[in-house]
Amino acid sequence: MASQAEETSPAHELETSKSTKANAAASTGETSVLTKPRRSKYRHVAAYHSQVRHSSLSRDADWTPSFLGFRNLMVLVLVAMNLRLIIENFMKYGVLICIKCHDYRQRDIVLGSILFALVPCHLFTAYIIELATAGAAKKTVGQPKKTDEEKEHDQQVFRSTWRYTAFLHTLNATLCLAVTSFVVYFYIHHPGIGTLCELHAIIVWLKICSYAFTNRDLRLALLNPSSDPGLPEIYASCPYPRNITIENLCYFWLAPTLVYQSVYPRTSSVRWSFVAKRLAEFGGLSVFIWLLSAQYAAPVLRNSIDKIAVMDIASILERVMKLSTISLVIWLAGFFALFQALLNALAEVMRFGDREFYTDWWNSSSLGVYWRSWNRPVYLFMKRHVYSPLVGRGWSPLAASGMVFLLSAILHEMLVGIPTHNFIGVAFVGMLFQLPLIAVTAPLEKMRDPLGKVIGNCIFWVSFCLVGQPLGALLYFFAWQAKYGSVSRMR
Amino acid sequence: MASQAEETSPAHELETSKSTKANAAASTGETSVLTKPRRSKYRHVAAYHSQVRHSSLSRDADWTPSFLGFRNLMVLVLVAMNLRLIIENFMKYGVLICIKCHDYRQRDIVLGSILFALVPCHLFTAYIIELATAGAAKKTVGQPKKTDEEKEHDQQVFRSTWRYTAFLHTLNATLCLAVTSFVVYFYIHHPGIGTLCELHAIIVWLKICSYAFTNRDLRLALLNPSSDPGLPEIYASCPYPRNITIENLCYFWLAPTLVYQSVYPRTSSVRWSFVAKRLAEFGGLSVFIWLLSAQYAAPVLRNSIDKIAVMDIASILERVMKLSTISLVIWLAGFFALFQALLNALAEVMRFGDREFYTDWWNSSSLGVYWRSWNRPVYLFMKRHVYSPLVGRGWSPLAASGMVFLLSAILHEMLVGIPTHNFIGVAFVGMLFQLPLIAVTAPLEKMRDPLGKVIGNCIFWVSFCLVGQPLGALLYFFAWQAKYGSVSRMR
Repeated sequence: MASQAEETSPAHELETSKSTKANAAASTGETSVLTKPRRSKYRHVAAYHSQVRHSSLSRDADWTPSFLGFRNLMVLVLVAMNLRLIIENFMKYGVLICIKCHDYRQRDIVLGSILFALVPCHLFTAYIIELATAGAAKKTVGQPKKTDEEKEHDQQVFRSTWRYTAFLHTLNATLCLAVTSFVVYFYIHHPGIGTLCELHAIIVWLKICSYAFTNRDLRLALLNPSSDPGLPEIYASCPYPRNITIENLCYFWLAPTLVYQSVYPRTSSVRWSFVAKRLAEFGGLSVFIWLLSAQYAAPVLRNSIDKIAVMDIASILERVMKLSTISLVIWLAGFFALFQALLNALAEVMRFGDREFYTDWWNSSSLGVYWRSWNRPVYLFMKRHVYSPLVGRGWSPLAASGMVFLLSAILHEMLVGIPTHNFIGVAFVGMLFQLPLIAVTAPLEKMRDPLGKVIGNCIFWVSFCLVGQPLGALLYFFAWQAKYGSVSRMR
Repeated sequence: MASQAEETSPAHELETSKSTKANAAASTGETSVLTKPRRSKYRHVAAYHSQVRHSSLSRDADWTPSFLGFRNLMVLVLVAMNLRLIIENFMKYGVLICIKCHDYRQRDIVLGSILFALVPCHLFTAYIIELATAGAAKKTVGQPKKTDEEKEHDQQVFRSTWRYTAFLHTLNATLCLAVTSFVVYFYIHHPGIGTLCELHAIIVWLKICSYAFTNRDLRLALLNPSSDPGLPEIYASCPYPRNITIENLCYFWLAPTLVYQSVYPRTSSVRWSFVAKRLAEFGGLSVFIWLLSAQYAAPVLRNSIDKIAVMDIASILERVMKLSTISLVIWLAGFFALFQALLNALAEVMRFGDREFYTDWWNSSSLGVYWRSWNRPVYLFMKRHVYSPLVGRGWSPLAASGMVFLLSAILHEMLVGIPTHNFIGVAFVGMLFQLPLIAVTAPLEKMRDPLGKVIGNCIFWVSFCLVGQPLGALLYFFAWQAKYGSVSRMR
């Protein structure tokens, strides 16, 4: 019966309609035989309300409906809102992008190139230091040892040698960083070129530290093979001091890691198509970031200057919020460009096997998880050469973490403050402020309730991406403007 | 070994650090016995890069990470962006909300009240018509029938009676709708009061139609019990003509449905706390919608007038996008206020059992699914009294759907055009435009690939909520402004 079919499946209109139609056709056939006038058998009596049912959003409802549609809606609203801002921006400012307007100075490029070329020299110096020490160690090992006294003497020789080596390495590494920082701060005006030089110097400084520490302990293991914990198996193919070669060091210099190992897991071949794709991603995202900065971030930043100057809190808040979306997109694009595209391309060219440059930091349920997962190269360096040694010496984990973030804060302030010629301490304070945030969000990370993780994740996003980054950018921009006026010639 | 423990779980810093510390403590204990100088056993040699691993965003990766964090980020960015717009709005306009400024006219309220009181009279008239017809039918059934000829005669009498009944019902229902529409269009200035009156009239018009059709077919079943499909079981407790009472009709008038049944599923008691909560939701959301309209929608609409007047496409697009977020929020709040809060409260008071006023329309993968799920009362009316009868008469499902949307388009235009005193046909065209959209998205609904459903869902949101609604609101507002100037006295 048509009406009954509809009762059982009221939602499937089309199917029902077919059966209704079939019924109707059948009845038409019947009536035509009886020569009655053609009349529908349909009756307006179906009991559509035949049972007690609850609205799906009520608490009484037996099942909670999926809300996937609202996720799609959120994406669409975000796209629409930002598309609107793009139109608004275009109507207000027109096209701000201008390749020739940028204020590159000839001297900046020359100095930057010299600094880039100087840094490998410090690496070479580190190699020379290690080569000399390795030679001394080989001699000691070559002699047959008989008594415990002689062994103790060896240890003392090792320790005094290490004192010299450590001094030379420190001198070499610090000189590398100090010269670059000095030149960038006083002679390189352009913040982009300055940042590149400073970043390269900091990376090489970290690499020299790791190189020196690791080789010291490899040497110790060679001198005293019995009393020490065994070395990782992967080092067996290149035992100390066979790793002290210029090729080995160059590989470490170019490899996407800050942690020195005499041997790394390697891939069997270079997939050049993979490299090309990653480099294309990097190039595309770099252009995207540049467009976004020039067309959207720059006007917002410029418009904020007056408001910061008079400390109008509501306006500053409004500016930080407007900036937060842009800086968030730039940050995400920059993360992808550097950690996914560039480091993967570099790793592929170097046949470097371990590509875990980051894990899923976007799901971080606490600030602690975030700092352990977004930048694995730096995290692993800090863990291996700062945190674990300090804990090994009896420091509390909290104190060791504090030390890690203190060092990190200094490096961040150098990386931002030196190229912008403004040591205003915002990056430093921002990094140290992570410690209380980590402490506050740590309990959320361990909660079993998914709500705790969601709250932790939201705290992470708000503190880091929606407030921290744009506020920092705003303050450094303000300091820059106060010192120099505009970075670009305004049209 | 500390270094090995770290190799296996490099991410669990704290746990590792504890074991490192324990090791260190053990070694300290050992060395103190041997009176050696206190020295850490920690070695900077751990092989953190011990295996080939892929970046989690690479295609090579063995598993795709969860992206739940980005969902949280989207929510936060939406909140931040809208919070910014709220601050911007406040800085531009200050507080626009003003209870006393609203342009209520005394006459509007008086006329509206009279219209509201008149409508039940038409229901009473419908009852009188049905009562008379039921009396005649009872007489016919009372007589013992002998021959087929007499039965055929009965049928003819029934049909001629139905002609009179149908004429009277049509006259009554149309008069009800026509009088209200006329008064609202020409004499009630305020669009809010007008909309309420028109909505009530349309609802009662639909109810009278359903009442007349259903009772006709119940009567037919009474006169001709053998040749007809059986009636739904739920009607057994109140067979025709025992349902023709004033109480039964009043219940149908107030019940949250447009489909007449002599019996409805009922709940056993009224939970007054449930009613109170739903009414509180309704009140709160109504205030929220009013605030949103006055503070955010009104300025955007007013600022759009000049742009529409000069047909500046980019600006109109920008305005529609700015309006789309606000109209979307108003729409969602309005949907919840009406379909979840108000109808559930009404159903609870009436002990009406079937609360399925909507299903999860937000997940609609096509426009067809949306129109079948967002407004179940109207959908069920259209299905029972327009679509299915037409298909039963041999119409194609497409033609029957076309008829449904044509009727719906007329009612929508009446509901919007009459209270705003502007028959500009946008609501009419918008509803008819659903037919091609339904046809286009129907294949997506049936795709097995979830991507098809996501695309269909996005088409639904964009066409309906992000473009259709704000554009419609803009055009009716423009027409209103062109005719009357502002609806509120501007401060």
